[in-house]
Amino acid sequence: MPDATPESLSLEEKAALLTGRDFSTTRPIEHAGIPSIVLVDGPHGVRPPDAAADHLGVNNSLPATCFPPAVAVGSSWDPEVAARVGAAVAREARAYGIHVVLGPGVNIKRSPLCGRNFEYYSEDPLLSGVLAAAHVKAMQAGGVGASVKHFAANNQEHERMRVSADVDERALREIYFPAFERVVTEARPATVMCAYNRINGVPASENRWLLTEVLRDEWGFQGLVVSDWGAVGDRVAALAAGLDLAMPADDGTGPAKIVEAVRDGSLDEAAVDRAVGRVVALTDLVADATNGLEEDEEEHHALARELAAECVVLLKNDGGVLPLALDTRIAVIGEFAAASRFQGGGSSHINATRKPAAVDAIRSLAADEGRAVSYARGFALDASADAEALLTEAVDAARKAEVAVVFAGLAERDESEGFDRETLDLPSAQVDVIRAVAAVAARTVVVLSNGGVISLEGWHDDVDAIVEGWLLGQAGGEAIADILFGAANPSGHLAETIPVRLQDNPSYLNFPGENLQVRYGEGVMVGYRHYNSIDLPVRYPFGHGLSYTTFETRDVSAVLAGDDTATVSVTVANTGGRPGKHVVQVYVATTAGPVRRPTRELRAFTKVALRPGESRTVELSLDRRAFAYYDIVRGGWVVAGGEYRVQVGRDAADIVAETTLTLAGDVITQPLSLDSTVNDWFTHPVIGPKLLDKLSQGMPELSPEEAEENARMMRMVDSMPMRQFVGFVGHLVTTEHLDDLVALSHEG
Amino acid sequence: MPDATPESLSLEEKAALLTGRDFSTTRPIEHAGIPSIVLVDGPHGVRPPDAAADHLGVNNSLPATCFPPAVAVGSSWDPEVAARVGAAVAREARAYGIHVVLGPGVNIKRSPLCGRNFEYYSEDPLLSGVLAAAHVKAMQAGGVGASVKHFAANNQEHERMRVSADVDERALREIYFPAFERVVTEARPATVMCAYNRINGVPASENRWLLTEVLRDEWGFQGLVVSDWGAVGDRVAALAAGLDLAMPADDGTGPAKIVEAVRDGSLDEAAVDRAVGRVVALTDLVADATNGLEEDEEEHHALARELAAECVVLLKNDGGVLPLALDTRIAVIGEFAAASRFQGGGSSHINATRKPAAVDAIRSLAADEGRAVSYARGFALDASADAEALLTEAVDAARKAEVAVVFAGLAERDESEGFDRETLDLPSAQVDVIRAVAAVAARTVVVLSNGGVISLEGWHDDVDAIVEGWLLGQAGGEAIADILFGAANPSGHLAETIPVRLQDNPSYLNFPGENLQVRYGEGVMVGYRHYNSIDLPVRYPFGHGLSYTTFETRDVSAVLAGDDTATVSVTVANTGGRPGKHVVQVYVATTAGPVRRPTRELRAFTKVALRPGESRTVELSLDRRAFAYYDIVRGGWVVAGGEYRVQVGRDAADIVAETTLTLAGDVITQPLSLDSTVNDWFTHPVIGPKLLDKLSQGMPELSPEEAEENARMMRMVDSMPMRQFVGFVGHLVTTEHLDDLVALSHEG
Repeated sequence: MPDATPESLSLEEKAALLTGRDFSTTRPIEHAGIPSIVLVDGPHGVRPPDAAADHLGVNNSLPATCFPPAVAVGSSWDPEVAARVGAAVAREARAYGIHVVLGPGVNIKRSPLCGRNFEYYSEDPLLSGVLAAAHVKAMQAGGVGASVKHFAANNQEHERMRVSADVDERALREIYFPAFERVVTEARPATVMCAYNRINGVPASENRWLLTEVLRDEWGFQGLVVSDWGAVGDRVAALAAGLDLAMPADDGTGPAKIVEAVRDGSLDEAAVDRAVGRVVALTDLVADATNGLEEDEEEHHALARELAAECVVLLKNDGGVLPLALDTRIAVIGEFAAASRFQGGGSSHINATRKPAAVDAIRSLAADEGRAVSYARGFALDASADAEALLTEAVDAARKAEVAVVFAGLAERDESEGFDRETLDLPSAQVDVIRAVAAVAARTVVVLSNGGVISLEGWHDDVDAIVEGWLLGQAGGEAIADILFGAANPSGHLAETIPVRLQDNPSYLNFPGENLQVRYGEGVMVGYRHYNSIDLPVRYPFGHGLSYTTFETRDVSAVLAGDDTATVSVTVANTGGRPGKHVVQVYVATTAGPVRRPTRELRAFTKVALRPGESRTVELSLDRRAFAYYDIVRGGWVVAGGEYRVQVGRDAADIVAETTLTLAGDVITQPLSLDSTVNDWFTHPVIGPKLLDKLSQGMPELSPEEAEENARMMRMVDSMPMRQFVGFVGHLVTTEHLDDLVALSHEG
Repeated sequence: MPDATPESLSLEEKAALLTGRDFSTTRPIEHAGIPSIVLVDGPHGVRPPDAAADHLGVNNSLPATCFPPAVAVGSSWDPEVAARVGAAVAREARAYGIHVVLGPGVNIKRSPLCGRNFEYYSEDPLLSGVLAAAHVKAMQAGGVGASVKHFAANNQEHERMRVSADVDERALREIYFPAFERVVTEARPATVMCAYNRINGVPASENRWLLTEVLRDEWGFQGLVVSDWGAVGDRVAALAAGLDLAMPADDGTGPAKIVEAVRDGSLDEAAVDRAVGRVVALTDLVADATNGLEEDEEEHHALARELAAECVVLLKNDGGVLPLALDTRIAVIGEFAAASRFQGGGSSHINATRKPAAVDAIRSLAADEGRAVSYARGFALDASADAEALLTEAVDAARKAEVAVVFAGLAERDESEGFDRETLDLPSAQVDVIRAVAAVAARTVVVLSNGGVISLEGWHDDVDAIVEGWLLGQAGGEAIADILFGAANPSGHLAETIPVRLQDNPSYLNFPGENLQVRYGEGVMVGYRHYNSIDLPVRYPFGHGLSYTTFETRDVSAVLAGDDTATVSVTVANTGGRPGKHVVQVYVATTAGPVRRPTRELRAFTKVALRPGESRTVELSLDRRAFAYYDIVRGGWVVAGGEYRVQVGRDAADIVAETTLTLAGDVITQPLSLDSTVNDWFTHPVIGPKLLDKLSQGMPELSPEEAEENARMMRMVDSMPMRQFVGFVGHLVTTEHLDDLVALSHEG
């Protein structure tokens, strides 16, 4: 632990400490005992720099275990899965002398097209936040700092360095911030990484409201804010806004500008000292490197396999075609079965220690039975081969099998950090193979490998089962084999909606924006919040996932635990023949308050393991936030009085039981002013009658028709501020009269 | 004509001239020869104040002809119809000594729920602007000033006095402004009325960008800006922003504040003088009142009947059930047939000179044949009667008739200025009647009276014909009779989409906003632009309308008339057996440019009258604006180079012929800077190769795999400003090198 304090450093040294030394490390200052800190990419594995690699950070890093990326962990709906990934990554990081592993990413999947969705958990902020907090806690418990990213509203790759995410504050507070807020308040990450993009015109790296007012003042963040790599344009403005460490190295201009700004008085040196203090505090993480990776390699690969199986989502399983008996005559089809696609491209790309192929894992499991598992390539990802011949070969193989298992998905070049997709479609050659195989095979199972949602239209109804594998990490091929044969029972659920059409997505016409602006026109209506709220059918809803066993939900009750918190009790039973895990999904639905609420919102969940015949009663807490909306006028969270339906769903579209709570809501008092509306005045319990009385003194007696017409006209000026309304009734009441009434309303 | 100049007035007099004297007039200043100006509501008829009415402007005004409101005129697609309304209203205005008639309203129908949609023309800005300009020109040619309103983005009634329309500039420029712009530049209205609402947080009445920079500096408006009644909060801020006349009277504080602000130097007296000059200029409109209304009454009612028939939209006519033979045995059903609903509620409500009922007009036309036309009330709008008995009576009548004609629609209390609707549904009692009648009648025709779009779902397929009458003005009942019997051939076309579901509307989840903000999340994708762009089926598309004859479109061609203007030539033929009018609708479709374009946009139209067998070739002009988009980065209209499909459609969803134009587009040069992106630099024709050369000097030879990985990584930093990218490649190139290249790019 360093004993240096900022006071012992020169201004130049302090400024130099606030920008990287190179691509991955900070500058050590030996006389002050400040060591260099190593920050490398994550989060589902580490990317230790290879000394032979160039400075761009490209090319191969040293080997590490590739655990399931966030897209898979999101589908586990299990913070334990996230935690075990975090803990294992921490062990590998320490083995390599890495102090901070960059991640996890908790950006919301606003559009299924975002190229980096595989690095994010969900379209839902609660699910994202709970999983990320578990990951961060476990990783930091292992002595390695996390960097929750990309703060904030970095929901696309297109023009990510310059685009302004134009998003209203309610959507930020209710959708885009909560996962960050939960991680910061519950898991206390060592660092938060600011995003590349602008938010409502202000670069995240220079956004004082974001980096200081919200992050530190409101959420109490004590750690260090690091830039995304290359995100800092104006080093001084960024520092003043609350960005501590700019990465990577620049050509020396950043530190020079800080020195200059302090000298000319435009930057307070206290801001420099605060940032330096945070860098120094981070050196607490520096410890001796633990033993090498080798001793963990075998164990971590096995862990990667176990966790991957928890993430697989069984979308469809007609006639119980799955699980397969070990002696089933299987035709494995598709290039992805031979060369697993298990991670996404870009800065999170791991040099995996092993890459077992699914077809080998299937053969290995089935080996005891001595039955042949055939393999046909089916299609070529690089268009190098004769598509027709591959198709014919696949169809032949399918015809001879009892079950054809087609491995389809997206290739590395189809999705990556750095760009967004333009379609949800599978490559047409793969659709051709699926349909041709399904036409001849006795039963057809499709296994998908994809970082972002793909469309199932055009072939969904042709096949018997669909296994959504996402990107499962390096042991994904084996995990899929475990699922296919029932060695593992699928328990994953969708963390994002699979829509019928890309055009159905609420961001469709506003993605990826234009002229360096992207309008979040859908506000809080992201993902299932949108589909439910406009009653639009989807292919598979958020939360959907099948099992090889069956579950029953009963005895749902909710009791208030205070003015605005509640406890939900649910009994779940495994009514099938296999051990399995069930996710209890608790949604809250309300129309209370002055804002448009989504039809329902996920407010609590838990994953329960049950043996056949076992039942268990679980309790879930609903905190104040489960009922609140963010009120932009009052600048805070408000619980509106009214009815709140507490719903337990198999998914976001299939509610199996519900109960209702009635909340009194926050007490909000608002004295009248001349800016209050006509309606505010007339409906005020004390002042309204007095004003009416005053007005009627000057009015002639009205006939019923005149009174009705009058009421209609009043409706037209309902929302007029009283200050202006005086112009309409100046002969009956004056501003002075009203001033008296204002005073009276303040007394009340 | 007054000979007074502002110089002869005291500051107090000038200030007093800028706020109303009472509800409808300005202050006369006798010593300066400045008369009072009378401004009253319109625009489809006048509302002369009744001396017996109270100061609120409520209750009855003096009698006037109620011409078809804008919702009907919009459906005529005929500027001649708009012009004849404008001219006739001017005659009545002068008869009453009115100088300015407030209107027309050209706000865009963003949501079908807006309570004031009946006062607006269309969801399309071109259609709105062309019709409004014709109205204003004709009215002002008659010596009466117009007040085009409500400027701007006043697209709802809910909280209209306080809500902020949060809308991006491209949507303002392409959707919400063009109708105002066209009226201002083509028709030179005497006044523009500012809206109640805020735009992006700034009240329209205090919005200098809106009222001065856009309206006067860009569009060249020379007239007077008047407030909507009660729209002014801060009189001084409004004046400084460009609002000349605040209406109605206030209690004297407005003028006092102006005087105070000039005295304390916070307001330039020149601003006061400019506004006073505009008020004085308006007194040019003051002329002797013409002869009384009486002599026009008969003629104007006949005109109202003729024009109303031009506005009716025949939505459906299965088996040619319409027109009816005069001797058809008809059951007329529905309270609207006996008491026509022909106008909307609120400030435009006319004390109509006559209100002939449709059932009487039908009986009158059918009288020669001596056949009985039966009438059944069907339903009660006020729920006063026994619904079951009314239904039974209607069914009995329908059973005995050859054709049942059901008059359905919305009651006055269902839609009005002052509030928005919450549903598109017809009252369920009416749907019950339609379905019950259709079940027993030989043929069923539904005639609709409604100011805003209503849903046709649940009964559309049960009936043979649907006549959309909107609100047709006081002669609407007679015009409907003319249409039913074929005395007039329907030629109206939808000026707004009839969607399948309210939820399909792009504003659905963002209407009417919350917490005093309404997010225009759909941007330019309003109305048919949205439905087409996401390929969503609608019940009837924008532009749809049937006729009793048939038309054929052929020989569509388009030739460039310059760099970015073109002439379209179309031949249309009446291939049926009756004289009729056909609307040629020209859309332009493109994907050119960096912004998301709607699938197609209406860019020209004309209505052509043709005798049976007659054909005519018409030419329509496409101006630069027909191809341009508004570029928020460059702050102006840009024509992008590329392909433009010129499409002639029966409606917005049914293109019958098209041709393609290729435009070179505007030449836009952009020298490099350190803020230019990595992509800008590497793709620059001169600088790109030089930079690559410089970088490769320091790079080791790359293997093909490394080169591919490098290319992938470059894609991730494509949009990074070069200033930041230097941090990634600082060992290869420095800021100084780049500065040299910047200079070089400026030379090129």
